[in-house]
Amino acid sequence: MLLHKIEEVRKHVKEWKKQGLSVGLVPTMGALHDGHLSLIEKAVEKCDKVVVSVFVNPIQFCPGEDFDKYPRTLEQDTKLCEDNGVSIVFAPNTTEMYGEVQMRSNDFLTYVIPPFFYVNKLCGKSRIGHFDGVCTVVNKLFNIVQPDYAFFGEKDAQQLIIIKKMVDDLNIPVKIIPCPIVREDSGLAMSSRNKYLSDEDKIHALALNKILKNIKSCYQKGINDVDALKETAYEFLDEHHDLEYLEFLNSDNLDEVTKADNNTRVFIACKVGGVRLIDNIYLG
Amino acid sequence: MLLHKIEEVRKHVKEWKKQGLSVGLVPTMGALHDGHLSLIEKAVEKCDKVVVSVFVNPIQFCPGEDFDKYPRTLEQDTKLCEDNGVSIVFAPNTTEMYGEVQMRSNDFLTYVIPPFFYVNKLCGKSRIGHFDGVCTVVNKLFNIVQPDYAFFGEKDAQQLIIIKKMVDDLNIPVKIIPCPIVREDSGLAMSSRNKYLSDEDKIHALALNKILKNIKSCYQKGINDVDALKETAYEFLDEHHDLEYLEFLNSDNLDEVTKADNNTRVFIACKVGGVRLIDNIYLG
Repeated sequence: MLLHKIEEVRKHVKEWKKQGLSVGLVPTMGALHDGHLSLIEKAVEKCDKVVVSVFVNPIQFCPGEDFDKYPRTLEQDTKLCEDNGVSIVFAPNTTEMYGEVQMRSNDFLTYVIPPFFYVNKLCGKSRIGHFDGVCTVVNKLFNIVQPDYAFFGEKDAQQLIIIKKMVDDLNIPVKIIPCPIVREDSGLAMSSRNKYLSDEDKIHALALNKILKNIKSCYQKGINDVDALKETAYEFLDEHHDLEYLEFLNSDNLDEVTKADNNTRVFIACKVGGVRLIDNIYLG
Repeated sequence: MLLHKIEEVRKHVKEWKKQGLSVGLVPTMGALHDGHLSLIEKAVEKCDKVVVSVFVNPIQFCPGEDFDKYPRTLEQDTKLCEDNGVSIVFAPNTTEMYGEVQMRSNDFLTYVIPPFFYVNKLCGKSRIGHFDGVCTVVNKLFNIVQPDYAFFGEKDAQQLIIIKKMVDDLNIPVKIIPCPIVREDSGLAMSSRNKYLSDEDKIHALALNKILKNIKSCYQKGINDVDALKETAYEFLDEHHDLEYLEFLNSDNLDEVTKADNNTRVFIACKVGGVRLIDNIYLG
């Protein structure tokens, strides 16, 4: 069932709760692919009722980013959800979520702001304000749907860690379920932004996953010095790659690591053909 | 029943919700007086179960403010609550609410930040970060108790308006119930900080309410020019008063007003004997 209004969603959820049913939420920006599908499947398996939100959230896009051209495929998304056991697809418009346009700045809107320590690195460094927008919209969705469980992909690992931190810090009564990265057969991590890649770009894009797999294999062979592990990346990079970061951080609190261990996560961001791609791997 | 742990409160509330009972929350910093009691009475009247939180919230005090000497009277507060039909007094310690000390800055803690337009005036102008601390702790309490209704006094009118804005902006599923200011027979607005006043200070402190009542009476006689109405305050002020602000704002959105109308609220803050006092009046 496709719903656009907050009050309609609340009405249904209230009814479910009365019946003692558990509720899962999969927050998305639409353009659903197999990565999302894996979250949906996990949610349907775990919860009596599943809500998938489809909302391209303007306040998490920075100036110059792809808000306008971000792929929007609601009809197809709704069908995919309904075919896979989702009870409600919640697709509000921007006014339903934020009221009038002039209300969307922090002059006029209450924001949920993740800690600077978690934000001032990886994607947060180049995408100023991005995670403020993410936390604010996810907080709103949690309040609208009041799910027992919410499902997030490990593909956006910094986002997942920041959301978990928000839930802890604000005592939000929801359990966050992390879901593993889904990859194309080639190894490329699924992303709605892969649609921007040419066939040739897609080949160059494989470097990200190759770098991470190689680092993990070096780590497993006993190399734990982060500088040495970083060095191993360069053999996979050429003029088609614009590396933004390659970082080794504690997977729970994003603390910097100089010697890799089993709780280290390696994060990479790289532009290929003008498209910004991210990937990550857990060493443990 | 006095509880100190978040999980204990959740357990009781969960049980109540299962039974279909409505839950009210009265957030306080303790040192309960007749003002709080009026909130509690309203809550007990409206809700099946009432939780009163007693927590002197460190992150809403600015450097140099009275966090350490803020009155703490938990035993007396608990008795007052229990005598008046409150089901749970929730008095967590600071570690229960925020974890370890070093976690309380915005470097390490997720904050809920009210809009600059609502904060950059009245008390927010001198108490930098105060309302960030208020919104963050109230958001946490809402998530812990999940009340149907929450009760706030109009004494702290800017706080009430900011909390309402937070609830709207973040779609928090709670209804905010404003409660009128309770005054001593003299007209002095009840406040936990009145304990800091000497008998002589208390007489000088009456100026705040006199100024507001006089303004309302002038308004009702047809004067609506804000400058003219402000002028009327000076006859009540002398060397015992250190006026911080006297402002006329829209009572819903804190927009500045030059001609007073029925939706205008007049706000005053003034130090008397070194104690910062606030009061306000609605002209409509």
